[in-house]
Amino acid sequence: MISFRSDNDAGASPEILQALTDCNTGPSYPYGADPWTKDVEEQLCRIFEREVRVLLVSTGTAANALALAAMTPPWGSVHCHRMAHIYNDECGAPEFFGSGLKLIPSASPGTLIDPVVLRNELKVGLGDVHSVQPSSVSITQATEEGQVYSPEQVAAIGQVCRDLKVPLHMDGARFSNALVALGCTPARLTWQSGVDVLSFGATKNGALNAEALVVFNDELWDTLPFRRKRAGHLISKMRFIAAQLQAYLRGDHWLGNARHANAMAHRLSDGLAGIRGVGLVVPTVTNILFVKFPQAMIDGLRQGGFDFYDGRWAPGVARLVTSFRTTPEMVDSFVGAAKELSR
Amino acid sequence: MISFRSDNDAGASPEILQALTDCNTGPSYPYGADPWTKDVEEQLCRIFEREVRVLLVSTGTAANALALAAMTPPWGSVHCHRMAHIYNDECGAPEFFGSGLKLIPSASPGTLIDPVVLRNELKVGLGDVHSVQPSSVSITQATEEGQVYSPEQVAAIGQVCRDLKVPLHMDGARFSNALVALGCTPARLTWQSGVDVLSFGATKNGALNAEALVVFNDELWDTLPFRRKRAGHLISKMRFIAAQLQAYLRGDHWLGNARHANAMAHRLSDGLAGIRGVGLVVPTVTNILFVKFPQAMIDGLRQGGFDFYDGRWAPGVARLVTSFRTTPEMVDSFVGAAKELSR
Amino acid sequence: MISFRSDNDAGASPEILQALTDCNTGPSYPYGADPWTKDVEEQLCRIFEREVRVLLVSTGTAANALALAAMTPPWGSVHCHRMAHIYNDECGAPEFFGSGLKLIPSASPGTLIDPVVLRNELKVGLGDVHSVQPSSVSITQATEEGQVYSPEQVAAIGQVCRDLKVPLHMDGARFSNALVALGCTPARLTWQSGVDVLSFGATKNGALNAEALVVFNDELWDTLPFRRKRAGHLISKMRFIAAQLQAYLRGDHWLGNARHANAMAHRLSDGLAGIRGVGLVVPTVTNILFVKFPQAMIDGLRQGGFDFYDGRWAPGVARLVTSFRTTPEMVDSFVGAAKELSR
Amino acid sequence: MISFRSDNDAGASPEILQALTDCNTGPSYPYGADPWTKDVEEQLCRIFEREVRVLLVSTGTAANALALAAMTPPWGSVHCHRMAHIYNDECGAPEFFGSGLKLIPSASPGTLIDPVVLRNELKVGLGDVHSVQPSSVSITQATEEGQVYSPEQVAAIGQVCRDLKVPLHMDGARFSNALVALGCTPARLTWQSGVDVLSFGATKNGALNAEALVVFNDELWDTLPFRRKRAGHLISKMRFIAAQLQAYLRGDHWLGNARHANAMAHRLSDGLAGIRGVGLVVPTVTNILFVKFPQAMIDGLRQGGFDFYDGRWAPGVARLVTSFRTTPEMVDSFVGAAKELSR
Repeated sequence: MISFRSDNDAGASPEILQALTDCNTGPSYPYGADPWTKDVEEQLCRIFEREVRVLLVSTGTAANALALAAMTPPWGSVHCHRMAHIYNDECGAPEFFGSGLKLIPSASPGTLIDPVVLRNELKVGLGDVHSVQPSSVSITQATEEGQVYSPEQVAAIGQVCRDLKVPLHMDGARFSNALVALGCTPARLTWQSGVDVLSFGATKNGALNAEALVVFNDELWDTLPFRRKRAGHLISKMRFIAAQLQAYLRGDHWLGNARHANAMAHRLSDGLAGIRGVGLVVPTVTNILFVKFPQAMIDGLRQGGFDFYDGRWAPGVARLVTSFRTTPEMVDSFVGAAKELSR
Repeated sequence: MISFRSDNDAGASPEILQALTDCNTGPSYPYGADPWTKDVEEQLCRIFEREVRVLLVSTGTAANALALAAMTPPWGSVHCHRMAHIYNDECGAPEFFGSGLKLIPSASPGTLIDPVVLRNELKVGLGDVHSVQPSSVSITQATEEGQVYSPEQVAAIGQVCRDLKVPLHMDGARFSNALVALGCTPARLTWQSGVDVLSFGATKNGALNAEALVVFNDELWDTLPFRRKRAGHLISKMRFIAAQLQAYLRGDHWLGNARHANAMAHRLSDGLAGIRGVGLVVPTVTNILFVKFPQAMIDGLRQGGFDFYDGRWAPGVARLVTSFRTTPEMVDSFVGAAKELSR
Repeated sequence: MISFRSDNDAGASPEILQALTDCNTGPSYPYGADPWTKDVEEQLCRIFEREVRVLLVSTGTAANALALAAMTPPWGSVHCHRMAHIYNDECGAPEFFGSGLKLIPSASPGTLIDPVVLRNELKVGLGDVHSVQPSSVSITQATEEGQVYSPEQVAAIGQVCRDLKVPLHMDGARFSNALVALGCTPARLTWQSGVDVLSFGATKNGALNAEALVVFNDELWDTLPFRRKRAGHLISKMRFIAAQLQAYLRGDHWLGNARHANAMAHRLSDGLAGIRGVGLVVPTVTNILFVKFPQAMIDGLRQGGFDFYDGRWAPGVARLVTSFRTTPEMVDSFVGAAKELSR
Repeated sequence: MISFRSDNDAGASPEILQALTDCNTGPSYPYGADPWTKDVEEQLCRIFEREVRVLLVSTGTAANALALAAMTPPWGSVHCHRMAHIYNDECGAPEFFGSGLKLIPSASPGTLIDPVVLRNELKVGLGDVHSVQPSSVSITQATEEGQVYSPEQVAAIGQVCRDLKVPLHMDGARFSNALVALGCTPARLTWQSGVDVLSFGATKNGALNAEALVVFNDELWDTLPFRRKRAGHLISKMRFIAAQLQAYLRGDHWLGNARHANAMAHRLSDGLAGIRGVGLVVPTVTNILFVKFPQAMIDGLRQGGFDFYDGRWAPGVARLVTSFRTTPEMVDSFVGAAKELSR
């Protein structure tokens, strides 16, 4: 079976697995008071070209929900895209961590939040005690549809947030894929463009279960260690989380994995181009494709041993996701099968 | 440095680490729909000699807080020992997961909850809308002081719970240590004695970050998968949690680790017996010792390269914890140093 | 100054005020264990032609939020109209009382929830642990725009709810106005059409601060007394809430007040018809009018001593609300002024 | 029937009832934007001899829970007396409003919180992420047992709070009774002695359903209006709450009522002194007596038409509460009956 289901079914990078064995030396202080955690913090400071505060957790949902809770009072609203993972796919985790805060999907028409639309939405109910108070903004980079905000687009949203005095969160579950697609620096894509807190994902790109919350705005830091413990997300043997991130960042392993995944997505996109009845729904930018197929081709591909999700979006639209583990042979095999089925 | 600080600073069993590499094969469905998770469920059914429902998470705090929230309404009280981890050491996690439930420490005088005292406490305020409603009981096995409830003692508490119609939770962060100390079956120590939900710990006894919530009472199951996701504790690459537990349970690896830790504790206890000025505060039963030392000896042991916690309990009382990684040489070295310092 | 701002700025019915003095006799058991509360319960059973459970509170927000919390788990969604008071005007009260539940506005295009649209929305994410679970429906009767659901329309929504096994809440802040407009029985408009819980409003129609939660579905009752106390809404001197409702219901005082308010709205609507530049935005059904005015007329009416809200909806649209205290003279004076300004 | 059950079963002062009728004039802005609310704020500034912020609500539970939530993060602890109403009698309201905060009863041995004991308790776990953080203190004045903190005793606790940088709340459900018993100024008993927020009770002393949160510390104000609305405690027709407080404060009506209630308690206490088998459990200071009776006398008094609570405290101990409505004749009748029964 060859899977294009998701980048979370691909297992782990061997380099990251090896790091777990390597760190299993003598006794070590628990709960993050260990040298591996300290090294990850230092690496992230280097990568982001400034002092940052770092909170390690095991899931992206935890990273996102902790960040939003620290940015938003219980009577506040988080403004996000209608396709946002935090709005649709976390079973109310932000509402739980945020003691009943409210997520408001932007009416922005496209695949990105429109800063002009957002600016108006952030003024609704402001100061009116009968209304939740617009309190924070969250964007996903790369988005759930595989698209990216350019640094200029992030900065435009960042400017709206500064003008309206609300902090900006970036859900970076696929931050690495966006970064290599855009070819800019991590600093440019985040704090230099107004991002206050980043959920820095690693799990989808090669780690087992490691994510980092990177905090650029010191005022948002203080409550986070208590929120993490209280949510059961302070891992006792933290070295085994930190070592994953250490190996992930070392020697730009993370960027290599992301470049590979994106390249495989483009190879897949290129291969499918020109096959009769097959068409991209959105441009291929990172490692996620949304492709329109004839239903018979979908059925045939499945029977041929390929797996992917379809039917959740428009009828006949499948999502194909590549990862650090996708090989050119897997891609070519899929393309070949599609071609065969198109005859 | 030789550490008797805690069983959470000891790293992981090599067998468990190896299992992570072994499971890193091809693609696998995420979120627990994988064969490793299924196998863990089956192993736990076998071990507990009945059908059980299993929820895997990464921390003991998550396991405990999820269980208590599923057992207790927001206006309910959880009755526990005044030394309970859930009462003192989880930064309010049960209150958070339980939407503001209340923990009430029992007035039981000793190191265990007294079923006679508990029975009265479970009647206070019952049916009175001005009072939180007694709704669940939680005991720790082995306790935070290294003591154990015999199966008869568990059953006596279980009977009180059944009489008062409240469910019984067991925090088994060190369940294995209790089990081998008591020499009874897992079934006898839990559901056969009235336990409804068990936090089955593995991390302190050799895993990296893996715990299982084992549910014996089907009525308490339904909300748990939603609660777990909503709390950010549904791991996407679940195979890396499940594989840890698989290796932990395989070939009674868990019991071996626990037997070793307990044996080291007894060796330590025996070695310290008879040293002038040194005395056990509670009997040595599992892998935790509370020992009264002369302050000079505490200082000398630290200078000699030994680490442990003291000063949190009575003055001059240190807690010494052994683990699967503690060696006889470490123990003997500690005892020798103490003897030397006593002269 | 003559106000058409809202039916909550009109003070109280003299009959209801008198009841407060009348009930101020000797000592009485607090917290609802008094004869006035019992009588209100009996009157409501009579009015709704069946056994009902009743919970008295002081505000409509409390009634709504308590009901929704009792009907919806924290990981559930309440489906409502995009104009619903619970969605827009309660500062997140349902999310607070419901421990982080989620309100999802229906995509229904008109001023009412469309049962066909609703049916599909109640299936989204069902059983998927990553999604909040569709758990309840809330409709407002009369709506925030003064419109009504006919008994048949309520029943159609009730049928969808029964089919999908979710309970149905009715926010009846202006239940009386809807009832007299429709000319049907309270039973027909609620439980006979599938309503499980009704927020039975009295404050907007003559009471000082009294609302009743009327529960038709016994399964939703048990948690409510605890939720009310815990939210600080169990009034100690309950007789002063109950006496208001007693006088409100006695001799159909409530229906008389509502008929008067509706009649004044129609008189206002009829008077404004035919004035140049003035037009109704929605039909006049109960006691709320949305009227398009030339801006100069809005300014002139204000200067002439009339007060009302405008500018919250479309530009140039004012909301005019009548109440039991609105007199024909007030209406005629407003209409006369508008006519004068139209010349 | 003559009741000494509680000061909440006594109905309302005629002067306060009259104020409701008097304020029922023309239209008035809702939600507190009315002249009655403004006047209450000004009266409270005058009474407390400084600028204060005022939030009107309908119940003492709401006042307390709102205050504590504004003073304490969800991972914080409120330190209070083990007999405190907030700890025992509000069904978890502070935990609900405070998103899962924790109430910790002080180990202070007597009927008041001991500042020396408190100082140590406020240091437990400070800065330790595994522990809830000591965040606020709440004292009841007069206490649930009818005792009072002298201004010096309040100031000693206030000093501890300032030293440890936590705010101090006073539950003043019976503030008036304490004030007249102590004969000091409201300012001296509150902010001049370190109180940050006062729940200023009126309901038990003559109002129907009106309480004021009086905030002396501006930093604790900002979130309160949102918290109140979100909890359903923003009354729309606020004039009917404000008018109660206006009449309560006007011409020192509140102090007169409290003086009367206290005087009746002393008359009762004096009358019972010397009756065989009858003894005060605590000194009579305000309007609450705890009295030890022979069981036969308790039974006889009940049969004689007197009502009161007993059996909740030690066996044979009854609580007797006087109010503004208790008459000398009622007291003398009770004393006479007790004397008769003692023969």
